[in-house]
Amino acid sequence: MKSVNQIAVAVAVVGISVSSGFVAAQTKAPAVKSSTATQAKSSTMLKATMADVLKASQASDWRSLNPENTLYLEMDKGRVVIELAPEFAPKNVANIKALVKEGYFDGLAMIRSHDNYVAQWGDASEKREFKTAAKKVEGEFTIKYQKDTEFTRLPDADGYAPQVGHANSFAAARDPKTQTTWLTHCYGAIGVARGNETDSGNGSSLYAVTGHAPRNLDRNITVVGRVMYGIELLSSLPRGTGALGFYEKAEERTPIKTVRLAADVPEAERSKLEVFRTNTTSFKALVEAQRNRGGDWYKFAANHIELCNVPIPVRVVK
Amino acid sequence: MKSVNQIAVAVAVVGISVSSGFVAAQTKAPAVKSSTATQAKSSTMLKATMADVLKASQASDWRSLNPENTLYLEMDKGRVVIELAPEFAPKNVANIKALVKEGYFDGLAMIRSHDNYVAQWGDASEKREFKTAAKKVEGEFTIKYQKDTEFTRLPDADGYAPQVGHANSFAAARDPKTQTTWLTHCYGAIGVARGNETDSGNGSSLYAVTGHAPRNLDRNITVVGRVMYGIELLSSLPRGTGALGFYEKAEERTPIKTVRLAADVPEAERSKLEVFRTNTTSFKALVEAQRNRGGDWYKFAANHIELCNVPIPVRVVK
Repeated sequence: MKSVNQIAVAVAVVGISVSSGFVAAQTKAPAVKSSTATQAKSSTMLKATMADVLKASQASDWRSLNPENTLYLEMDKGRVVIELAPEFAPKNVANIKALVKEGYFDGLAMIRSHDNYVAQWGDASEKREFKTAAKKVEGEFTIKYQKDTEFTRLPDADGYAPQVGHANSFAAARDPKTQTTWLTHCYGAIGVARGNETDSGNGSSLYAVTGHAPRNLDRNITVVGRVMYGIELLSSLPRGTGALGFYEKAEERTPIKTVRLAADVPEAERSKLEVFRTNTTSFKALVEAQRNRGGDWYKFAANHIELCNVPIPVRVVK
Repeated sequence: MKSVNQIAVAVAVVGISVSSGFVAAQTKAPAVKSSTATQAKSSTMLKATMADVLKASQASDWRSLNPENTLYLEMDKGRVVIELAPEFAPKNVANIKALVKEGYFDGLAMIRSHDNYVAQWGDASEKREFKTAAKKVEGEFTIKYQKDTEFTRLPDADGYAPQVGHANSFAAARDPKTQTTWLTHCYGAIGVARGNETDSGNGSSLYAVTGHAPRNLDRNITVVGRVMYGIELLSSLPRGTGALGFYEKAEERTPIKTVRLAADVPEAERSKLEVFRTNTTSFKALVEAQRNRGGDWYKFAANHIELCNVPIPVRVVK
């Protein structure tokens, strides 16, 4: 296990730091509570912070990424680690893996960075050949679930879906009426770009959400996974100045060296990451810690958490 | 008025483009609707898009930024334009203006870029002298409102506040029980960094929200305005590698040339911007266009919009 600082960087994938001193001035005055603060701060706030929950977590609260479903997107500045979720989009994930295995993405580039929205990559010329992968894949905007399919519901209501929560460390939603489920467009979500036709996407152009969750996209496009590490390499790209944030000139595009499946990478070169499980009592404690923040800094307890504000911590292991 | 492209850049402050072709593949196939798509798409989706609403807007649907409450933060790469909202935080805004007038920020730097959270600036050494500004300013986390105070409520419920909506082109919330209102932490919101004490902020270190709205901060810290133009200069900063995204070395900090009040800048050097008014029927139409997206791309209508997904367009005028 590396330092807390590195955990913080990983956890920052979902925008939450393990410290409770958010937006604090650099030099912190001692926490002398004013009477107003004491008044506003309910007893529920004197409990564990997220840092406490993570510190108390056991090995069983974490799982490794599945190398058969994990992609390494390599750029000059480093590696972006993406875990795919075939249970939500089997056909699209299979096609993306086929594209990766045939080296489709190697030497391509980031083609778009749209502020507060998405970073997108692929073949700007759209001339690259598909060797084994399909050119058209049916959109998997939602998928049927079974009674025993894992889903840990959030306690709070959501405006975009009848139910929201987590499945296998991914943010997801459900509609019990139609017995359908789908991955949601939270920060770091990876989706399959498409044209107007629902089967016009094939995974050769993917995007990562790099801004406030565009939940309006849910059920309109196929989400296939999320960035587990290195999202800052995508979110800090210079913004494209063309329509929709596309880059106007080839030289503005950040090159992709390779995209490989973790299982195809020698073990010594793999990123050793673990993600917090979302079907545990520890995860419930983490959600509660974030619903009503502990620590000295917070004065008002929200008593609520919105789906895309729930952190799903990732840590670097030895 | 400049090109639509420039409007798009400005509108991108809130992450929405005037085009409805979100996350589209680069080459769009003609919009041949599949039977599934036609089935899912309700008649409400055949109405105006946001682009239609903006195109049909009148001069009276827009207002200029108030030069007495507008700041220009100048960096090598360009200008960030911030409009302050003294009606929500009179004491903090007054102190920030005092700091700006005494040249406090000139030659300082971006000290923090925390992925999916905030960019923050100020004096890393905290040694710079205050000439006329106060060192401690009471936090204005909420403020009382009057019966006739402008507020356009959103039709949809919110988990973080009893009521949400807009006031004078700012995203805001209300609690009728306490007759209080506050600005919310949507993308681009500007807040006053503080330590644990509620009066430990003074405006000498400010942050801009550059990720998914951290609404848990609402009512815990003073929000003073929002970025109206140039947010991408803050959101694409390299991330800091220290705890909480602070930069660890001085050379990593992007310098601030000056921060000036627009009213103190010669008229020829001012940014000519207009923001969409939020108390109009045009704004209501815009909200409805975003609640249920029109155009050919969307197949499923959300019939909902979350506060921080509501665009508040800004345009460049001649």
